[in-house]
Amino acid sequence: MSKVRVHISTSLDGYVAGPNQSMEEPLGEGGERLHDWAVALKSWRELQGMEGGEENASNAVVADENANVGAEIMGRGKFGPPDRGPWGGDPWRGWWGEDPPFHKPVFVLTHHEREPLTLSDTTFTFVTDGIEAALERARAAAGDRDVFIGGGADVINQYLAAGLVDELELHVVPILLGGGARLFAAVGPGVKLELVRVVEAPGVTHLTYRVVK
Amino acid sequence: MSKVRVHISTSLDGYVAGPNQSMEEPLGEGGERLHDWAVALKSWRELQGMEGGEENASNAVVADENANVGAEIMGRGKFGPPDRGPWGGDPWRGWWGEDPPFHKPVFVLTHHEREPLTLSDTTFTFVTDGIEAALERARAAAGDRDVFIGGGADVINQYLAAGLVDELELHVVPILLGGGARLFAAVGPGVKLELVRVVEAPGVTHLTYRVVK
Repeated sequence: MSKVRVHISTSLDGYVAGPNQSMEEPLGEGGERLHDWAVALKSWRELQGMEGGEENASNAVVADENANVGAEIMGRGKFGPPDRGPWGGDPWRGWWGEDPPFHKPVFVLTHHEREPLTLSDTTFTFVTDGIEAALERARAAAGDRDVFIGGGADVINQYLAAGLVDELELHVVPILLGGGARLFAAVGPGVKLELVRVVEAPGVTHLTYRVVK
Repeated sequence: MSKVRVHISTSLDGYVAGPNQSMEEPLGEGGERLHDWAVALKSWRELQGMEGGEENASNAVVADENANVGAEIMGRGKFGPPDRGPWGGDPWRGWWGEDPPFHKPVFVLTHHEREPLTLSDTTFTFVTDGIEAALERARAAAGDRDVFIGGGADVINQYLAAGLVDELELHVVPILLGGGARLFAAVGPGVKLELVRVVEAPGVTHLTYRVVK
Protein backbone atom coordinates (compact mmCIF):
# COMPACT_ATOMS: atom_id res chain seq x y z
CA MET A 1 0.00 0.00 0.00
CA SER A 2 1.16 3.50 -0.66
CA LYS A 3 2.78 5.37 2.23
CA VAL A 4 2.23 8.77 3.76
CA ARG A 5 5.59 10.46 3.99
CA VAL A 6 7.00 13.60 5.55
CA HIS A 7 10.38 15.04 4.81
CA ILE A 8 11.38 18.45 5.99
CA SER A 9 14.39 20.55 6.95
CA THR A 10 14.53 21.49 10.61
CA SER A 11 16.87 23.55 12.74
CA LEU A 12 18.53 21.81 15.66
CA ASP A 13 16.08 23.61 17.95
CA GLY A 14 13.14 22.13 16.08
CA TYR A 15 11.89 24.91 13.82
CA VAL A 16 10.98 24.36 10.17
CA ALA A 17 10.62 28.11 9.55
CA GLY A 18 11.98 31.09 11.44
CA PRO A 19 9.97 33.73 13.31
CA ASN A 20 7.93 36.45 11.55
CA GLN A 21 7.13 34.84 8.20
CA SER A 22 6.30 37.53 5.63
CA MET A 23 6.11 38.24 1.91
CA GLU A 24 9.78 39.21 2.00
CA GLU A 25 10.80 36.24 4.14
CA PRO A 26 8.39 33.38 3.43
CA LEU A 27 10.46 31.09 5.64
CA GLY A 28 10.75 33.66 8.43
CA GLU A 29 13.87 35.30 9.82
CA GLY A 30 16.85 33.07 9.15
CA GLY A 31 14.63 30.35 7.70
CA GLU A 32 16.28 30.38 4.27
CA ARG A 33 19.34 28.84 5.89
CA LEU A 34 17.35 25.65 6.48
CA HIS A 35 17.59 24.96 2.76
CA ASP A 36 21.17 25.98 1.99
CA TRP A 37 22.20 22.32 1.88
CA ALA A 38 19.46 21.55 -0.66
CA VAL A 39 19.70 24.47 -3.07
CA ALA A 40 23.37 23.66 -3.62
CA LEU A 41 22.51 20.17 -4.90
CA LYS A 42 22.48 18.95 -8.47
CA SER A 43 19.35 16.85 -7.87
CA TRP A 44 17.44 19.73 -6.31
CA ARG A 45 18.41 22.09 -9.11
CA GLU A 46 17.31 19.56 -11.72
CA LEU A 47 13.88 19.40 -10.12
CA GLN A 48 13.61 23.18 -10.46
CA GLY A 49 14.83 23.02 -14.06
CA MET A 50 18.21 24.54 -13.13
CA GLU A 51 21.67 23.40 -14.23
CA GLY A 52 24.80 22.66 -12.22
CA GLY A 53 25.08 21.90 -8.53
CA GLU A 54 27.05 19.73 -6.16
CA GLU A 55 27.00 15.98 -5.91
CA ASN A 56 27.27 14.61 -2.41
CA ALA A 57 25.47 12.17 -0.09
CA SER A 58 22.39 14.40 0.01
CA ASN A 59 21.67 13.84 -3.69
CA ALA A 60 20.57 10.25 -3.20
CA VAL A 61 18.43 11.29 -0.24
CA VAL A 62 16.59 13.93 -2.29
CA ALA A 63 16.21 11.53 -5.21
CA ASP A 64 14.77 8.86 -2.89
CA GLU A 65 12.26 11.16 -1.36
CA ASN A 66 11.00 12.48 -4.67
CA ALA A 67 10.71 8.99 -6.13
CA ASN A 68 7.31 7.34 -6.09
CA VAL A 69 5.39 10.36 -4.80
CA GLY A 70 1.98 10.68 -6.48
CA ALA A 71 0.45 13.63 -4.65
CA GLU A 72 1.30 16.33 -2.10
CA ILE A 73 -0.72 17.84 0.71
CA MET A 74 0.28 21.28 1.97
CA GLY A 75 -1.13 23.84 4.38
CA ARG A 76 -2.39 27.26 3.52
CA GLY A 77 0.71 28.62 5.23
CA LYS A 78 3.00 26.93 2.70
CA PHE A 79 0.83 27.88 -0.29
CA GLY A 80 0.51 31.48 0.94
CA PRO A 81 0.14 34.36 1.06
CA PRO A 82 1.32 34.92 4.64
CA ASP A 83 -1.68 37.01 5.66
CA ARG A 84 -4.08 34.13 4.77
CA GLY A 85 -7.81 34.89 5.04
CA PRO A 86 -10.34 34.80 2.13
CA TRP A 87 -8.85 34.47 -1.36
CA GLY A 88 -10.41 37.67 -2.80
CA GLY A 89 -11.05 38.58 -6.42
CA ASP A 90 -7.56 38.18 -7.88
CA PRO A 91 -6.38 35.27 -5.79
CA TRP A 92 -2.83 34.35 -4.90
CA ARG A 93 -1.30 31.76 -7.24
CA GLY A 94 1.44 30.40 -4.96
CA TRP A 95 5.10 31.32 -4.56
CA TRP A 96 6.37 29.35 -7.53
CA GLY A 97 5.42 31.24 -10.71
CA GLU A 98 3.74 29.71 -13.77
CA ASP A 99 5.67 26.41 -13.67
CA PRO A 100 5.64 25.20 -10.08
CA PRO A 101 8.18 22.51 -9.17
CA PHE A 102 5.62 19.94 -8.01
CA HIS A 103 4.61 18.23 -11.29
CA LYS A 104 1.89 16.33 -9.45
CA PRO A 105 -1.53 16.97 -7.88
CA VAL A 106 -1.27 19.23 -4.81
CA PHE A 107 -4.02 19.45 -2.18
CA VAL A 108 -4.04 22.68 -0.19
CA LEU A 109 -5.71 22.67 3.24
CA THR A 110 -7.62 25.90 3.75
CA HIS A 111 -10.65 27.29 5.53
CA HIS A 112 -11.69 29.20 2.40
CA GLU A 113 -13.27 27.54 -0.64
CA ARG A 114 -11.75 28.04 -4.04
CA GLU A 115 -11.83 26.46 -7.50
CA PRO A 116 -8.81 24.33 -8.47
CA LEU A 117 -5.84 26.17 -9.98
CA THR A 118 -3.79 24.57 -12.76
CA LEU A 119 -0.33 25.94 -13.51
CA SER A 120 1.65 23.94 -16.09
CA ASP A 121 1.48 20.28 -14.98
CA THR A 122 0.56 21.05 -11.36
CA THR A 123 -3.06 21.33 -10.22
CA PHE A 124 -3.71 22.82 -6.80
CA THR A 125 -6.99 21.58 -5.31
CA PHE A 126 -8.28 23.47 -2.27
CA VAL A 127 -9.71 21.26 0.47
CA THR A 128 -11.87 22.76 3.21
CA ASP A 129 -13.13 19.66 5.00
CA GLY A 130 -10.08 18.66 7.00
CA ILE A 131 -6.94 16.56 6.98
CA GLU A 132 -8.62 13.17 6.60
CA ALA A 133 -10.63 14.29 3.60
CA ALA A 134 -7.50 15.78 2.03
CA LEU A 135 -5.63 12.53 2.58
CA GLU A 136 -8.43 10.53 1.01
CA ARG A 137 -8.37 12.71 -2.09
CA ALA A 138 -4.56 12.68 -2.26
CA ARG A 139 -4.50 8.88 -1.96
CA ALA A 140 -7.02 8.58 -4.79
CA ALA A 141 -4.92 10.89 -6.95
CA ALA A 142 -1.66 9.11 -6.08
CA GLY A 143 -2.91 5.60 -6.85
CA ASP A 144 -0.15 3.13 -5.98
CA ARG A 145 2.29 5.90 -5.27
CA ASP A 146 2.99 7.67 -1.98
CA VAL A 147 1.45 10.82 -0.55
CA PHE A 148 3.86 13.52 0.62
CA ILE A 149 2.84 15.85 3.44
CA GLY A 150 4.70 18.97 2.37
CA GLY A 151 4.27 21.19 5.43
CA GLY A 152 4.25 23.57 7.12
CA ALA A 153 4.73 22.49 10.67
CA ASP A 154 1.06 22.79 11.63
CA VAL A 155 -0.07 20.42 8.91
CA ILE A 156 2.69 17.90 9.60
CA ASN A 157 1.92 18.04 13.32
CA GLN A 158 -1.78 17.42 12.67
CA TYR A 159 -1.08 14.38 10.50
CA LEU A 160 1.45 13.01 13.02
CA ALA A 161 -0.93 13.48 15.95
CA ALA A 162 -3.69 11.74 14.01
CA GLY A 163 -1.45 8.72 13.43
CA LEU A 164 -1.63 9.13 9.65
CA VAL A 165 2.09 9.37 8.82
CA ASP A 166 4.14 6.29 7.92
CA GLU A 167 7.59 7.77 7.41
CA LEU A 168 9.28 10.91 8.69
CA GLU A 169 12.58 12.15 7.32
CA LEU A 170 14.24 15.06 9.09
CA HIS A 171 17.00 17.06 7.45
CA VAL A 172 18.66 18.37 10.60
CA VAL A 173 20.55 21.59 9.90
CA PRO A 174 23.08 22.69 12.56
CA ILE A 175 21.56 26.10 13.20
CA LEU A 176 19.33 27.54 15.90
CA LEU A 177 16.41 29.74 14.84
CA GLY A 178 15.19 30.60 18.33
CA GLY A 179 11.52 30.70 17.30
CA GLY A 180 9.13 30.16 14.42
CA ALA A 181 7.12 27.19 13.20
CA ARG A 182 7.83 24.32 15.53
CA LEU A 183 7.78 20.73 14.40
CA PHE A 184 6.17 18.32 16.89
CA ALA A 185 4.41 21.10 18.82
CA ALA A 186 1.50 19.48 20.68
CA VAL A 187 2.00 16.14 18.91
CA GLY A 188 2.55 14.45 22.26
CA PRO A 189 3.94 11.11 23.38
CA GLY A 190 1.54 8.82 21.52
CA VAL A 191 3.66 8.60 18.37
CA LYS A 192 6.18 5.72 18.30
CA LEU A 193 9.18 6.07 16.03
CA GLU A 194 12.00 3.84 14.88
CA LEU A 195 15.14 5.09 13.18
CA VAL A 196 15.66 3.42 9.82
CA ARG A 197 18.47 5.44 8.25
CA VAL A 198 21.13 8.06 8.99
CA VAL A 199 22.95 9.89 6.20
CA GLU A 200 25.63 12.44 7.03
CA ALA A 201 26.21 15.07 4.34
CA PRO A 202 27.68 18.58 4.03
CA GLY A 203 25.66 20.99 6.17
CA VAL A 204 22.94 18.51 7.11
CA THR A 205 22.20 15.19 8.79
CA HIS A 206 19.35 13.13 7.34
CA LEU A 207 17.46 11.06 9.92
CA THR A 208 14.69 8.81 8.61
CA TYR A 209 12.13 7.37 11.02
CA ARG A 210 9.38 4.84 10.52
CA VAL A 211 6.22 5.48 12.52
CA VAL A 212 5.43 2.29 14.44
CA LYS A 213 1.70 1.59 14.25
CA MET B 1 43.02 24.62 26.81
CA SER B 2 40.37 22.57 28.48
CA LYS B 3 36.94 22.50 26.86
CA VAL B 4 33.44 23.10 28.15
CA ARG B 5 31.32 20.18 27.04
CA VAL B 6 27.64 19.30 27.05
CA HIS B 7 26.26 15.87 26.38
CA ILE B 8 22.67 15.02 27.02
CA SER B 9 19.88 12.72 25.90
CA THR B 10 17.02 14.47 24.13
CA SER B 11 13.72 13.37 22.68
CA LEU B 12 13.14 14.03 19.00
CA ASP B 13 10.86 16.90 20.00
CA GLY B 14 13.66 18.52 21.96
CA TYR B 15 12.96 17.69 25.62
CA VAL B 16 15.64 16.48 28.03
CA ALA B 17 13.06 15.66 30.71
CA GLY B 18 9.33 15.02 30.47
CA PRO B 19 6.54 17.13 31.95
CA ASN B 20 5.73 17.22 35.70
CA GLN B 21 9.07 16.31 37.28
CA SER B 22 8.53 14.99 40.82
CA MET B 23 10.11 12.91 43.58
CA GLU B 24 8.59 9.81 41.98
CA GLU B 25 9.56 10.79 38.44
CA PRO B 26 12.72 12.94 38.62
CA LEU B 27 12.90 12.98 34.83
CA GLY B 28 9.20 13.77 34.43
CA GLU B 29 6.51 11.72 32.74
CA GLY B 30 8.11 9.40 30.22
CA GLY B 31 11.53 10.94 30.80
CA GLU B 32 13.14 7.69 31.97
CA ARG B 33 12.88 6.46 28.39
CA LEU B 34 15.48 9.04 27.38
CA HIS B 35 18.08 6.91 29.11
CA ASP B 36 17.03 3.39 28.12
CA TRP B 37 19.84 3.25 25.55
CA ALA B 38 22.41 4.18 28.22
CA VAL B 39 21.39 2.06 31.18
CA ALA B 40 21.65 -1.04 28.98
CA LEU B 41 25.32 -0.35 28.28
CA LYS B 42 28.34 -2.07 29.79
CA SER B 43 30.28 1.21 30.02
CA TRP B 44 27.44 3.04 31.76
CA ARG B 45 26.95 0.20 34.22
CA GLU B 46 30.66 0.14 35.01
CA LEU B 47 30.52 3.84 35.89
CA GLN B 48 27.73 3.11 38.39
CA GLY B 49 29.65 0.13 39.79
CA MET B 50 27.28 -2.37 38.16
CA GLU B 51 28.15 -5.53 36.25
CA GLY B 52 27.04 -6.79 32.84
CA GLY B 53 25.50 -4.79 30.02
CA GLU B 54 25.54 -4.59 26.25
CA GLU B 55 28.41 -3.65 24.03
CA ASN B 56 27.48 -1.63 20.97
CA ALA B 57 28.46 1.60 19.22
CA SER B 58 27.22 3.68 22.14
CA ASN B 59 29.89 2.29 24.48
CA ALA B 60 32.70 4.19 22.80
CA VAL B 61 30.59 7.37 22.80
CA VAL B 62 29.99 7.14 26.55
CA ALA B 63 33.63 6.29 27.20
CA ASP B 64 34.74 9.31 25.11
CA GLU B 65 32.49 11.71 26.90
CA ASN B 66 33.55 10.58 30.34
CA ALA B 67 37.22 10.72 29.46
CA ASN B 68 39.19 13.80 30.44
CA VAL B 69 36.39 15.43 32.45
CA GLY B 70 37.73 17.16 35.55
CA ALA B 71 34.59 18.81 36.96
CA GLU B 72 30.86 19.01 36.45
CA ILE B 73 28.42 21.90 36.74
CA MET B 74 24.76 21.11 37.33
CA GLY B 75 21.62 23.06 38.10
CA ARG B 76 19.60 22.89 41.27
CA GLY B 77 16.95 21.07 39.23
CA LYS B 78 19.30 18.17 38.53
CA PHE B 79 20.65 18.04 42.08
CA GLY B 80 17.15 18.24 43.56
CA PRO B 81 14.84 18.02 45.30
CA PRO B 82 12.12 18.96 42.79
CA ASP B 83 10.44 21.51 45.04
CA ARG B 84 13.70 23.53 45.33
CA GLY B 85 13.66 26.50 47.71
CA PRO B 86 15.85 26.93 50.84
CA TRP B 87 17.82 23.86 51.93
CA GLY B 88 16.38 23.63 55.46
CA GLY B 89 17.80 21.94 58.56
CA ASP B 90 18.28 18.40 57.22
CA PRO B 91 19.21 19.22 53.66
CA TRP B 92 18.76 17.06 50.60
CA ARG B 93 21.88 15.07 49.68
CA GLY B 94 21.15 14.42 46.01
CA TRP B 95 19.52 11.51 44.22
CA TRP B 96 22.52 9.23 44.18
CA GLY B 97 22.99 7.84 47.71
CA GLU B 98 26.25 7.79 49.66
CA ASP B 99 28.49 6.96 46.65
CA PRO B 100 27.42 9.27 43.81
CA PRO B 101 28.58 8.26 40.31
CA PHE B 102 30.48 11.50 39.62
CA HIS B 103 33.88 10.82 41.21
CA LYS B 104 34.90 14.43 40.57
CA PRO B 105 34.13 17.92 41.90
CA VAL B 106 30.55 18.98 41.16
CA PHE B 107 29.39 22.61 41.24
CA VAL B 108 25.68 23.08 41.86
CA LEU B 109 24.07 26.35 40.73
CA THR B 110 21.55 27.50 43.32
CA HIS B 111 20.00 30.66 44.74
CA HIS B 112 20.45 29.33 48.30
CA GLU B 113 23.79 29.25 50.10
CA ARG B 114 25.02 26.01 51.58
CA GLU B 115 28.27 24.46 52.83
CA PRO B 116 29.95 21.93 50.52
CA LEU B 117 28.76 18.32 50.77
CA THR B 118 31.23 15.46 50.39
CA LEU B 119 29.90 11.98 49.68
CA SER B 120 32.59 9.36 49.03
CA ASP B 121 34.92 10.85 46.37
CA THR B 122 32.43 13.48 45.13
CA THR B 123 32.26 16.96 46.64
CA PHE B 124 29.24 19.10 45.77
CA THR B 125 30.02 22.80 46.01
CA PHE B 126 27.04 25.16 45.98
CA VAL B 127 27.51 28.29 43.88
CA THR B 128 25.18 31.25 44.29
CA ASP B 129 26.90 33.89 42.18
CA GLY B 130 25.98 32.77 38.68
CA ILE B 131 27.10 30.67 35.74
CA GLU B 132 30.35 32.50 35.02
CA ALA B 133 31.53 32.20 38.62
CA ALA B 134 30.62 28.52 38.61
CA LEU B 135 32.57 27.97 35.41
CA GLU B 136 35.60 29.76 36.82
CA ARG B 137 35.57 27.52 39.88
CA ALA B 138 34.98 24.38 37.82
CA ARG B 139 37.85 25.27 35.47
CA ALA B 140 40.16 25.78 38.44
CA ALA B 141 39.12 22.40 39.86
CA ALA B 142 39.46 20.63 36.51
CA GLY B 143 42.95 21.93 35.73
CA ASP B 144 43.92 20.71 32.25
CA ARG B 145 40.83 18.58 31.98
CA ASP B 146 37.41 19.50 30.57
CA VAL B 147 34.37 20.89 32.34
CA PHE B 148 31.09 19.06 31.78
CA ILE B 149 27.80 20.98 31.95
CA GLY B 150 25.57 18.25 33.30
CA GLY B 151 22.14 19.87 32.93
CA GLY B 152 19.27 20.31 33.24
CA ALA B 153 18.04 22.14 30.21
CA ASP B 154 17.96 25.58 31.87
CA VAL B 155 21.60 25.44 32.83
CA ILE B 156 22.72 24.13 29.44
CA ASN B 157 20.65 26.81 27.70
CA GLN B 158 22.20 29.54 29.84
CA TYR B 159 25.75 28.39 29.06
CA LEU B 160 24.94 28.04 25.34
CA ALA B 161 23.36 31.49 25.17
CA ALA B 162 26.38 32.99 26.94
CA GLY B 163 28.71 31.47 24.32
CA LEU B 164 30.56 29.44 26.95
CA VAL B 165 30.12 25.93 25.48
CA ASP B 166 32.72 24.40 23.15
CA GLU B 167 31.17 21.05 22.33
CA LEU B 168 27.59 19.78 22.35
CA GLU B 169 26.74 16.10 22.00
CA LEU B 170 23.10 15.16 21.63
CA HIS B 171 21.90 11.64 22.17
CA VAL B 172 18.76 11.79 20.06
CA VAL B 173 16.20 9.23 21.21
CA PRO B 174 13.33 8.46 18.80
CA ILE B 175 10.52 9.34 21.18
CA LEU B 176 8.28 12.34 21.61
CA LEU B 177 7.66 13.64 25.14
CA GLY B 178 5.22 16.39 24.21
CA GLY B 179 6.40 18.73 26.94
CA GLY B 180 8.93 19.16 29.74
CA ALA B 181 12.39 20.70 29.96
CA ARG B 182 13.24 22.01 26.54
CA LEU B 183 16.78 22.16 25.25
CA PHE B 184 17.61 25.35 23.29
CA ALA B 185 14.61 27.27 24.69
CA ALA B 186 15.41 30.97 24.30
CA VAL B 187 18.99 30.27 23.21
CA GLY B 188 18.34 32.03 19.93
CA PRO B 189 20.13 32.24 16.60
CA GLY B 190 23.48 33.60 17.78
CA VAL B 191 25.04 30.17 18.37
CA LYS B 192 26.93 28.71 15.37
CA LEU B 193 27.36 24.97 15.25
CA GLU B 194 29.25 22.51 13.10
CA LEU B 195 28.62 18.78 13.06
CA VAL B 196 31.74 16.83 13.87
CA ARG B 197 30.49 13.26 14.34
CA VAL B 198 27.46 11.02 13.87
CA VAL B 199 27.23 7.62 15.57
CA GLU B 200 24.21 5.41 14.97
CA ALA B 201 23.50 2.90 17.74
CA PRO B 202 20.59 0.83 19.06
CA GLY B 203 17.82 3.16 20.24
CA VAL B 204 19.79 6.38 19.84
CA THR B 205 21.66 8.58 17.37
CA HIS B 206 24.66 10.48 18.72
CA LEU B 207 25.23 13.88 17.07
CA THR B 208 28.30 15.82 18.16
CA TYR B 209 28.57 19.51 17.34
CA ARG B 210 31.41 21.96 17.78
CA VAL B 211 30.37 25.48 18.73
CA VAL B 212 32.00 27.85 16.24
CA LYS B 213 33.38 30.89 18.07
